[in-house]
Amino acid sequence: MRAATIRDGEIAVEEHPDPRPQTGELLVRVRAAGLNGADMMQLAGRYPAPPGAPKDIPGLEFAGEVLETGDAVERFEPGDRVMSIVGGGGQAEQVVVNERLAMPVPDELDWIAAGGVPEVFFTAHDALFTQAGLSVGERLLVHGAAGGVGMAAVQLATMAGARVTATVRDEHCREQVAALGVNAIEPEGFAEAGPFDVILELVGAPNWPANLDALALRGRIMVIGVGAGANIELDLRKLMFKRARILASTMRARPLEEKAIATRLVERAVLPGFVSGDLSVPVAATFPLDEVAAAYDRFKAGGKLGKVVLEI
Amino acid sequence: MRAATIRDGEIAVEEHPDPRPQTGELLVRVRAAGLNGADMMQLAGRYPAPPGAPKDIPGLEFAGEVLETGDAVERFEPGDRVMSIVGGGGQAEQVVVNERLAMPVPDELDWIAAGGVPEVFFTAHDALFTQAGLSVGERLLVHGAAGGVGMAAVQLATMAGARVTATVRDEHCREQVAALGVNAIEPEGFAEAGPFDVILELVGAPNWPANLDALALRGRIMVIGVGAGANIELDLRKLMFKRARILASTMRARPLEEKAIATRLVERAVLPGFVSGDLSVPVAATFPLDEVAAAYDRFKAGGKLGKVVLEI
Repeated sequence: MRAATIRDGEIAVEEHPDPRPQTGELLVRVRAAGLNGADMMQLAGRYPAPPGAPKDIPGLEFAGEVLETGDAVERFEPGDRVMSIVGGGGQAEQVVVNERLAMPVPDELDWIAAGGVPEVFFTAHDALFTQAGLSVGERLLVHGAAGGVGMAAVQLATMAGARVTATVRDEHCREQVAALGVNAIEPEGFAEAGPFDVILELVGAPNWPANLDALALRGRIMVIGVGAGANIELDLRKLMFKRARILASTMRARPLEEKAIATRLVERAVLPGFVSGDLSVPVAATFPLDEVAAAYDRFKAGGKLGKVVLEI
Repeated sequence: MRAATIRDGEIAVEEHPDPRPQTGELLVRVRAAGLNGADMMQLAGRYPAPPGAPKDIPGLEFAGEVLETGDAVERFEPGDRVMSIVGGGGQAEQVVVNERLAMPVPDELDWIAAGGVPEVFFTAHDALFTQAGLSVGERLLVHGAAGGVGMAAVQLATMAGARVTATVRDEHCREQVAALGVNAIEPEGFAEAGPFDVILELVGAPNWPANLDALALRGRIMVIGVGAGANIELDLRKLMFKRARILASTMRARPLEEKAIATRLVERAVLPGFVSGDLSVPVAATFPLDEVAAAYDRFKAGGKLGKVVLEI
């Protein structure tokens, strides 16, 4: 099979042996695979693939058709449309995945949209609800809302009855985010739009210490992206007086059992939103697999609304 | 009545009008009242009394006998032995308190011990269990374990089946903490004794960034004391990879309803420990009310095991 391949800091398409499904696994013919920030970090050599994932094939999510099932597979059969997160290897013609991580693709989603769903909706749902406990009526600030996770978070929080403010640096993207009915603002001076019960941090250090000023009593800052810098100065006394919490998480290195639990939550809580029309998958650009280098360049350039997806 | 009184940064005993119980309140003849770190901060002018508390009488806890009850009091009557946290005013011959904050004093506790119970056991129970979710078998590190909250935390965590390590700077105190059966160590190099699932921070900045190094995957750092410094540098990326949480809290400024809920938890979960003998109240020193200035000096000098309590 052909697959996006990282070699010496470059990304290109190379031939690899076809993967084989082991017990409990699905072999999937990939139709679409989204790009994510972790792929960029892996390409830059700063985020090695976790144990069990292909070392040189990036890709944390995909959508496609089941080609073949390993022993003891119970939920899926050849021909089923599935989508999933994986520890790596998604940006390839074929991938194997444990069936516990696979979700059925709702009829309402085409391949391109489905290929951009798993990682960002999984990440956003876990961060907002499982980790930060966002609840109806609470005030949410999403930093860096125009990206894939940001757009998923804005939609999920709106669906959950939260009051959403979103910072978006690019003016054109900001208008598009505002069109979703949320309060879209520029990052400068965001604390004046607070206080917020939950802040979803997808940008990093430049938003500190203002994040603490913008936080409501008993507020939570959920850190899942620090591309703009990770080192901050923190006044613990201010954190105490606000009785606040800083939560931080990553998705990719979690063990199978935790990813499987999160996948079941996404099936129950998120997929119905695509059926009802509450949720959609904004796609900024698609590229064929042969143009994977261009896709990565587009992702890194920023200023996009939603996902960059490979069509495979 | 006579009461410890803060005037121009000094503490002394002065005459005050007797307080009167309003609806739902108890008037209590105070027998003993513990000192706490917040009293020192208030004396230093850095922690004004919260709304509704006497501006100039410190004291966040007391034990004594009910003298009189206001209208609509349901649980207590004159002569009952009670103890309670208060927003201030505890270091006085008389104090009024909402009955929802009062707890019965177990027969096993004398006045001195009871006067040192509410603030530290309330604070330690809330921090370890309600906030940080400490659970059986988890590894706990208590920084500054020889103080009042620290000793309460070490005992509660041991009672809860956690595995407890405690940092204690004073060598003599460290031996006494070790005698409780916990792993008592000096603060230097504490991270080597990790990893820990929960770190209770009662000291402050000097324990950072080592606190992050010492933390287990999915660990929680609970910050409730920063007397040695509050400003730290934090690597958010490290926090993400550990999927860790920094929690921070204070007790004194909480609204009545939250304090009442925490009080009920202490009644149910902590007071039985004094009856069974699992818990005790280490008292480092007692002073009569007239020697309140000496009591404050003793508290500030450090190197003590457990509480400093005024006998009133």
